Amino acid sequence: MAKKSTTPTFCLGVDYGTNSCRALVVNTANGAEIASHVYNYPSGDAGILLDPKDPNVARQDPADYIKGFVTSVKNAVKKATKVRGFKVDRVIGIGVDTTGSTPIPVDKDGTALAMLPEFKGNLAAYAWLWKDHTSYAEAAEITAKAAKHKDNYLSKCGGTYSSEWYWSKILHCKRTAPKVFKAAYSWVECADFIPAYITGNTNPDTMVRCICAAGHKAMYNEQWGGLPSETFLASLDKDLPRLRYTTKALPSDQKAGELTAAIAKKVGLPAGIPVAAGAFDAHHGAVGSGAKAGTLVKIMGTSTCDCMPAPKDKKLPDIPGLCGIVDGSIIPDMYGLEAGQSAVGDIFNWFVKQLTPGSFGTGGDAHVKLTNEAAKLAPGASGLIALDWNNGNRTILVDPLLTGMLVGQTLHTTAPEVYRALVEATAFGAVTIINRMEEYGVKVKEVINCGGISEKNAMVMQIYADVCNRPMKISSSSQTCALGAAIFGAVVGGAYRSTNAAQKKMTSVKPKVFKPIKKNVAVYAKLYKLYMQLHDALGGVNKSADLSGVMKQLIEIRKQARK
Amino acid sequence: MAKKSTTPTFCLGVDYGTNSCRALVVNTANGAEIASHVYNYPSGDAGILLDPKDPNVARQDPADYIKGFVTSVKNAVKKATKVRGFKVDRVIGIGVDTTGSTPIPVDKDGTALAMLPEFKGNLAAYAWLWKDHTSYAEAAEITAKAAKHKDNYLSKCGGTYSSEWYWSKILHCKRTAPKVFKAAYSWVECADFIPAYITGNTNPDTMVRCICAAGHKAMYNEQWGGLPSETFLASLDKDLPRLRYTTKALPSDQKAGELTAAIAKKVGLPAGIPVAAGAFDAHHGAVGSGAKAGTLVKIMGTSTCDCMPAPKDKKLPDIPGLCGIVDGSIIPDMYGLEAGQSAVGDIFNWFVKQLTPGSFGTGGDAHVKLTNEAAKLAPGASGLIALDWNNGNRTILVDPLLTGMLVGQTLHTTAPEVYRALVEATAFGAVTIINRMEEYGVKVKEVINCGGISEKNAMVMQIYADVCNRPMKISSSSQTCALGAAIFGAVVGGAYRSTNAAQKKMTSVKPKVFKPIKKNVAVYAKLYKLYMQLHDALGGVNKSADLSGVMKQLIEIRKQARK
Repeated sequence: MAKKSTTPTFCLGVDYGTNSCRALVVNTANGAEIASHVYNYPSGDAGILLDPKDPNVARQDPADYIKGFVTSVKNAVKKATKVRGFKVDRVIGIGVDTTGSTPIPVDKDGTALAMLPEFKGNLAAYAWLWKDHTSYAEAAEITAKAAKHKDNYLSKCGGTYSSEWYWSKILHCKRTAPKVFKAAYSWVECADFIPAYITGNTNPDTMVRCICAAGHKAMYNEQWGGLPSETFLASLDKDLPRLRYTTKALPSDQKAGELTAAIAKKVGLPAGIPVAAGAFDAHHGAVGSGAKAGTLVKIMGTSTCDCMPAPKDKKLPDIPGLCGIVDGSIIPDMYGLEAGQSAVGDIFNWFVKQLTPGSFGTGGDAHVKLTNEAAKLAPGASGLIALDWNNGNRTILVDPLLTGMLVGQTLHTTAPEVYRALVEATAFGAVTIINRMEEYGVKVKEVINCGGISEKNAMVMQIYADVCNRPMKISSSSQTCALGAAIFGAVVGGAYRSTNAAQKKMTSVKPKVFKPIKKNVAVYAKLYKLYMQLHDALGGVNKSADLSGVMKQLIEIRKQARK
Repeated sequence: MAKKSTTPTFCLGVDYGTNSCRALVVNTANGAEIASHVYNYPSGDAGILLDPKDPNVARQDPADYIKGFVTSVKNAVKKATKVRGFKVDRVIGIGVDTTGSTPIPVDKDGTALAMLPEFKGNLAAYAWLWKDHTSYAEAAEITAKAAKHKDNYLSKCGGTYSSEWYWSKILHCKRTAPKVFKAAYSWVECADFIPAYITGNTNPDTMVRCICAAGHKAMYNEQWGGLPSETFLASLDKDLPRLRYTTKALPSDQKAGELTAAIAKKVGLPAGIPVAAGAFDAHHGAVGSGAKAGTLVKIMGTSTCDCMPAPKDKKLPDIPGLCGIVDGSIIPDMYGLEAGQSAVGDIFNWFVKQLTPGSFGTGGDAHVKLTNEAAKLAPGASGLIALDWNNGNRTILVDPLLTGMLVGQTLHTTAPEVYRALVEATAFGAVTIINRMEEYGVKVKEVINCGGISEKNAMVMQIYADVCNRPMKISSSSQTCALGAAIFGAVVGGAYRSTNAAQKKMTSVKPKVFKPIKKNVAVYAKLYKLYMQLHDALGGVNKSADLSGVMKQLIEIRKQARK
């Protein structure tokens, strides 16, 4: 609960996205967002360093992160000073979230190798951005070896290790850039690098590592004593065990340290402000949207991340296909369940860019026009059904080598019909995640959405409500990640005794709730059966599939819908 | 062989399409097309009478056909008189082909009911155009009853009776327009109506009915004594048996009669010119393209019709899934095999109209631009595969309730990639027909294509050559239906002793032959296996399908193709 003080206090959330970082100043009493500033990374292509020879390469310059912190915080604070009640000495805490897994090779002092003159321009020494896919072979190797290990290291991350994750990238660096590997005393997730840098606690042996990154991406689990064993790491590469840090990974209600005088001066804040341990953007987004036990938060953007805390009163089974189950990764002292869809907004954007006739316009205009037309269609009236796998399937099949599919086209099929079918496909993907959680005893009592699509596209939200047969709520904040980070700033600053207590005061949902419409629910229940038939057949779950009725049932549903 | 005369002789082919009819004047010695004239039907929507309340209705005014004959022939003859060597008294014969099944209700004199004042404007009394689909329920009923009949009436038409065909339409008329049904003394195919009208042999009891229409659309076969028995027809409706004509249906090398003085005067020709028995446009198109035993002719337009004569020296088995096997329907004294794809050009047109971005332009321009880009892609490089069923499947599944499908989309899939995948899908459909014929012992030794797509789109033809692993030849004539009709004019006029002899002199293929490219053939062989897996699974052939490898194999093929 909020301190019974008449003096307002404030906290800061700093959210590092793929192309920019954002600082947000928030009133700890009520979550009011009083000032913010966005800093676009200056390097490369919108902040991403690419290699024209290899489309899998995606790196970032750690110097951008540092400049980003200083510039965004300084400016947000400057703007806040114009708001009544704000004073810099009333800032009680800072939280940070970043993309991930985005590991950075550092030296013994915790300095990013990329910032040392001898590694300037050597991309292997830079931050390996989450969407760098160079290490797919190493990921497959880790998956194969971990699957055989007695401790079943993959049981908490869906059974498959990804090329986007910590050890894959480090192993790939060893094999392709041995000089960098040799020079790296440790590898630090971006989510740990920023809190370490701004608190000065940069010694890799003692710095705070967050449970969110460690648990979801580095196979850290207290069940087997932290990171995978040295023996296991040695089975991947003899030089890997030395990178096994042994500190206890912490949730974000714990401090990473206090703001150093040097940084404080640069951003115009007092030194010594507590800084929370970091986490990934989606997890803080979930917190900023009001995630709690039984409340699933869907962060809807180009892809989605589905986060739900689950209470620790009963032992949680491993849930096959979930991206991760990590103790304390979203809300401290709860299991953090993470799932997600590897493409949602990206699929709609793809359709607009590649397959939308000129009469609908381009870009955002086309989304609006297609949505307007698609919204007029009754569920099932298009006769179409799609699989939402244009970027593989993250949950529940965990298979990046799956692709999109569209069934039911006639000579009259229109672009808005396909657009709607693609929206519906992502909704079917969404309910598949919910169903999987519930099949394993984790009840989803409430769904809160956040992110651009949920705010902008009422049709999408209504379809999700109808397909999932659950009310869809929308987070009030449009910068939930930064708000979540700020909430942890408030917690480490002492404004609240727990994350949940802070959320109760600092988060809310919009008054407009999308409620399921009964007759739509009935049609989508039929379509979902067909979706699952295709899902299981093409996804390899059912190897003796009878799909002979799919097209005919789509026609029958279409006939009913057009009546 | 041509007569050893120094005086040239000429013949006339009149081809009735869906929207217009064309008269073509041809030199009998060498097939040279010396003059032609096209007449667009004036009634309705491009010649088609529609019912705003029922999209299945498609009728035509028989008066348009008559005006069409007079206008097109008169003008073609007029143009021909300007060509050296042509004289009206050197026209030795006339052939006619039409769309079908397009039955017309007539009175006892053979006059179309639509032309009688009391039926003016009553659409049921007009010509029931081939693509009228009002009688789908009757078609299903006929299929069900014929399937149980001892004579297996559907064995020559692929096992399924269509709503586009003769008896379905008549039965639907009985049930929905009983006054018209009662007034109709007989129902005459358009292909018989025109020859009857211009020769004056209009008595329904004695007029010439062609084997092409009777055999392919009315279940006529000498094996069971002509049309289905009165008992069978009575099982459909007690009033149907009276419509069972008992004349022997004839091939087009037989005369329907001679041009009447009245018509001759109107068109500027002498009376008494022999007129060949009619046939359907595609069949005459096959003849005009050079169809012979072992030579498959593909008439490629919005849909395709695949026609191949087969010798009668050995008994031909029933071939499941073929649209028809009729003695004498293409070339007299040979079996006429007909198959087809229910949408080819229509699929490409649909994609251009509905799913092509403005940057490719519209209409014909878009086809050219998409083709130019698609032609740059290596087979398999898109990672896509499609089913060509946007308008159902005519051969070999014979199922109008199938629909299109596209598999393999990523977030980078482009419009030209999809366009190429659609072209490839139609090629896979084409080779499926060839394979089916060969599985039943009918060897396809040569493939000749005709129709707009084959002339205009080299990429399509190369893909067909590579997918089918056979050279693709193109007919020299761009009006092969009218040329085929003219060939039968030459035969009934006595210029040749046989259709084959006439074809040898009067037809040819273009010098450019599309030959299979070995490395493309190898890739398409792999893709075709995937096509057939999807074909059998979605088409209901395989009810325990393992599709788990489809997407992964597409990715593997894509990887190889992009190397």
